[in-house]
Amino acid sequence: MNRIDSTKNPKVKNVKRLSKKKYREREQQFVVEGWHLLEEVLSHEVVVQELLISENKEFRPHLDVSGLPVTVVTEQVMNEMSHTETPQGILAICRMPDQTDVLLNQNNNYLFVDGVQDPGNLGTIIRTADAVGITAVILGEGTVDSYNDKVIRATQGSLFHLPVIKGELEEWIDGCNKRAIPVFGTAVGKGTTHSAIASQKGFALLVGNEGAGVQEKYLEMTDQNIYVPIYGNAESLNVSVATGILLYHLKQTI
Amino acid sequence: MNRIDSTKNPKVKNVKRLSKKKYREREQQFVVEGWHLLEEVLSHEVVVQELLISENKEFRPHLDVSGLPVTVVTEQVMNEMSHTETPQGILAICRMPDQTDVLLNQNNNYLFVDGVQDPGNLGTIIRTADAVGITAVILGEGTVDSYNDKVIRATQGSLFHLPVIKGELEEWIDGCNKRAIPVFGTAVGKGTTHSAIASQKGFALLVGNEGAGVQEKYLEMTDQNIYVPIYGNAESLNVSVATGILLYHLKQTI
Repeated sequence: MNRIDSTKNPKVKNVKRLSKKKYREREQQFVVEGWHLLEEVLSHEVVVQELLISENKEFRPHLDVSGLPVTVVTEQVMNEMSHTETPQGILAICRMPDQTDVLLNQNNNYLFVDGVQDPGNLGTIIRTADAVGITAVILGEGTVDSYNDKVIRATQGSLFHLPVIKGELEEWIDGCNKRAIPVFGTAVGKGTTHSAIASQKGFALLVGNEGAGVQEKYLEMTDQNIYVPIYGNAESLNVSVATGILLYHLKQTI
Repeated sequence: MNRIDSTKNPKVKNVKRLSKKKYREREQQFVVEGWHLLEEVLSHEVVVQELLISENKEFRPHLDVSGLPVTVVTEQVMNEMSHTETPQGILAICRMPDQTDVLLNQNNNYLFVDGVQDPGNLGTIIRTADAVGITAVILGEGTVDSYNDKVIRATQGSLFHLPVIKGELEEWIDGCNKRAIPVFGTAVGKGTTHSAIASQKGFALLVGNEGAGVQEKYLEMTDQNIYVPIYGNAESLNVSVATGILLYHLKQTI
């Protein structure tokens, strides 16, 4: 079994570099941290290339990691690589999966994300999309990278449960238009109150940036633009909360 | 005008101490940061005791801060006190308002929070409660302090829009029971799907801790326990998303 004692080991440097999107894309790798997320990647066909575990930590007995290369590291080395304040002592270097082919189907539900910037928000949105049974999430340009460590953590594993892919939103909206899949844009205070819209068998919901919302050029391509009304004194809702309210409202459950 | 050049100035130490709940409660003070939150406290009858601004920063012209004691600080001093990576250069030390008297009324809506721990979650929950027009938010024991800087930031000012008070949830639920205000507990997978419940004129919603949910002793006191169903593979929803879905579902809008 390999062992790393020094924070200056090239492998440590590599893991730290993977916190940058540019480097993740070049290497086609990303890092997950903690036992729960390791379990999620192992059970969802993500290729784990290497496990890094702190010395004196036990493997979770129910996880089968036989056949995976393991490197033991000191606690200091783990702290150097970890993004959490109290590391669980387990990191996995994973291979980025190929972008899944997502097909547009009239009976399915899609979520289009235009420029959500906060990792916690995007992660929570992906988790909610998973919960409500969305077919695929498409991330438009300017959206935070889904392999960002904070995004992965906030998804709580949902990132590996459904296709979450990068895409050109114009093409995706156009694809929906051609297949008569209704696309609902979200525009604060413009368009129709969400409660006036019936639930839908197939639909695409388009949500946008925390400050600027959905870009006008996309709002012009949708079938209808909707919003969650504000009854009190808040200026707006958090985008992940609004997305949750809209997805659960649109989802046909009967 | 006063001026602070040294990060060792006692006033700097005082502001830094106010990031701790114990100290905030002893001093009955809290700190808000940034122009937007300053505007919110000034327009909602919160007493601002002192403004600390970075040198070379201009006051926002539309904010009337005449009569408020202002201390100018160096950028280094501001960075020392600030909780943000790129400080806007303005901090306000505020007096904690007296806990508002909240009366239970059959036509009003209340949110009871049992042990939500994450500051971002609590802040987002308060923002959503404000948006949907909740009358008051009651924070039970074990809930993160609402004057925590991350909570304040996530509320985006909503903390100052409605009463958010600490309370003994048992007494509050009991009070609702006596006044025939229906109390809905939330219990993942137990009780009734939320969509089976009609909207309500007056109600109280009870939400719980990120991991453990609402304590059993409270769930036994409610009129009904509800949950947002999971259709996909996520184990659960984020508590602030679930709270948003439930509040907007229960709220009577017609």
